[in-house]
Amino acid sequence: MKITALAGGTGASKFLLGLSAVLAPDEITIIANTGDDIELFGLRICPDIDTVTYTLGGVIEETTGWGISGDTFESLKWLERYGEATWFKLGDRDLATHIFRTAQLHRGRSLTEVTDYIRCALGVRSKILPMTDDYTPTRVITDEREMHFQEYFVRWRCEPRVKAIRFEDIEKAHPSPGVERSILEADAVVICPSNPFISIGPILAVPGVRKALEETAAPVVAITPIIGGKALKGPAAEMLRDLGHEVSAAGVAAVYEDLVDVFVLDQEDADLSEAIEQIGVRPAVTNTVMKTLEDKQRLAEFVLEEVMRDE
Amino acid sequence: MKITALAGGTGASKFLLGLSAVLAPDEITIIANTGDDIELFGLRICPDIDTVTYTLGGVIEETTGWGISGDTFESLKWLERYGEATWFKLGDRDLATHIFRTAQLHRGRSLTEVTDYIRCALGVRSKILPMTDDYTPTRVITDEREMHFQEYFVRWRCEPRVKAIRFEDIEKAHPSPGVERSILEADAVVICPSNPFISIGPILAVPGVRKALEETAAPVVAITPIIGGKALKGPAAEMLRDLGHEVSAAGVAAVYEDLVDVFVLDQEDADLSEAIEQIGVRPAVTNTVMKTLEDKQRLAEFVLEEVMRDE
Repeated sequence: MKITALAGGTGASKFLLGLSAVLAPDEITIIANTGDDIELFGLRICPDIDTVTYTLGGVIEETTGWGISGDTFESLKWLERYGEATWFKLGDRDLATHIFRTAQLHRGRSLTEVTDYIRCALGVRSKILPMTDDYTPTRVITDEREMHFQEYFVRWRCEPRVKAIRFEDIEKAHPSPGVERSILEADAVVICPSNPFISIGPILAVPGVRKALEETAAPVVAITPIIGGKALKGPAAEMLRDLGHEVSAAGVAAVYEDLVDVFVLDQEDADLSEAIEQIGVRPAVTNTVMKTLEDKQRLAEFVLEEVMRDE
Repeated sequence: MKITALAGGTGASKFLLGLSAVLAPDEITIIANTGDDIELFGLRICPDIDTVTYTLGGVIEETTGWGISGDTFESLKWLERYGEATWFKLGDRDLATHIFRTAQLHRGRSLTEVTDYIRCALGVRSKILPMTDDYTPTRVITDEREMHFQEYFVRWRCEPRVKAIRFEDIEKAHPSPGVERSILEADAVVICPSNPFISIGPILAVPGVRKALEETAAPVVAITPIIGGKALKGPAAEMLRDLGHEVSAAGVAAVYEDLVDVFVLDQEDADLSEAIEQIGVRPAVTNTVMKTLEDKQRLAEFVLEEVMRDE
């Protein structure tokens, strides 16, 4: 069975950990969002790629959902002495990843190649593809001003109101090698429980990706990132509100309307099934909260069953 | 009084600390060797500049003479997971310096500008000038093969026999802004107790520097890095031997013969005074071992007195 998963950061990683417990590693291909990539201190930081890689590699800092377990912050503290802005927290071990990646990119390696090297070095056996090798930072236009997504997210803690989101240079970007094929040749495509606007949105905006999703014979199933009108993590709820969508799982299903066959929503939101059905998407209700590895595995199994029902 | 000092790493830094205790900071200009600079993991490392800066900034790790006091090595350990060679020890705080410097260089700042910014950030009030803004790595041709100086020094612990030393691209290099003027306008020039071949040698090899030393009206005084036929630190003795020089303070004086007016040698080597006098250099004997701050200050005072005697 070949599953291709579109992934953001923390929520996606939890689901992928469950999926890895159910399938063989080589049955899973992950297309990771790079829209939230940022350059800091001359280093290329890929938060979503790293969160997925660290989680599947078993080195993620679980208390925060980002960075490396037990990391220290000596380097960052010292960078502060040089007047550098340090609102984006980078641990010492984590920095090694960014230093290594940046050096490799400067030597002419592609982000795809470096990502593959790093995931192998950390013992991750599923393929992780950046959505693109190009740099297409997500910009958030707020009621205050336009800023990089990380500035909105980390520095200003999602406080400004979002007026629009744009993906810089996305029209010139190319899907990274293997992205389109992995969608076209998959037995199923899973849109992980990630923010539809700033995690999945950038992936869908890479020219060719949406077309591959429309053309693939595989069923496409999305998992809700919203439960009871709230996101477990991140600004998905605020963004649904600010961008004029219904703040609910049904609101997310509507964003994916023309792309997905099945929409997995939480049992808490079972009453939204009818609304989702009405927009032409098949609802599938289960417990989508992933606390334990058991939860993650169970959700992965549920999704696979739904996929097989759909084929 | 305006003193310009040509400096390598540890030995020079000790002397400069003494000099800083005797003179006002703005009376001292330091020209630092950049021949031992190296690029690792895409980062520009400037060991001598950093040792001088960290020492005068009061943050040097005194037990080793390099790096930042109490530094940790988490980042380096993690880089090892990515297969990077980690024989060159870079602490987490120290890495911040290299990350910051590299980012600034990539943004088009010169090494002179970045060096100045860093020394100010660390509270160093004497000017530190890189000998050049160009990259002119010192290569050591050994009986085994040619290698970067740091490889010879750190990786192979000075074990290979040295056949020759060359400074890559030095003929195309320019002294950094202020270097020549600081020599021409000085009241005295001090060649610090550093390795004559790989610390002072590269500075003298930058086109224009030797000429400025020949033309300056200021007395030039060198302090021996060799005591009783041995270097307190580093491969100066091995290099004197391998390159066919006398392994003694007199051997070093002979290397500087046409450049220096006064040569400060250790009381242990007082019997070499005559030999030094014979090559036309005035010897000045004192205790040159710098253990305490008092030692350093006393040596600085001695050197200044000798300089004034010479004027």
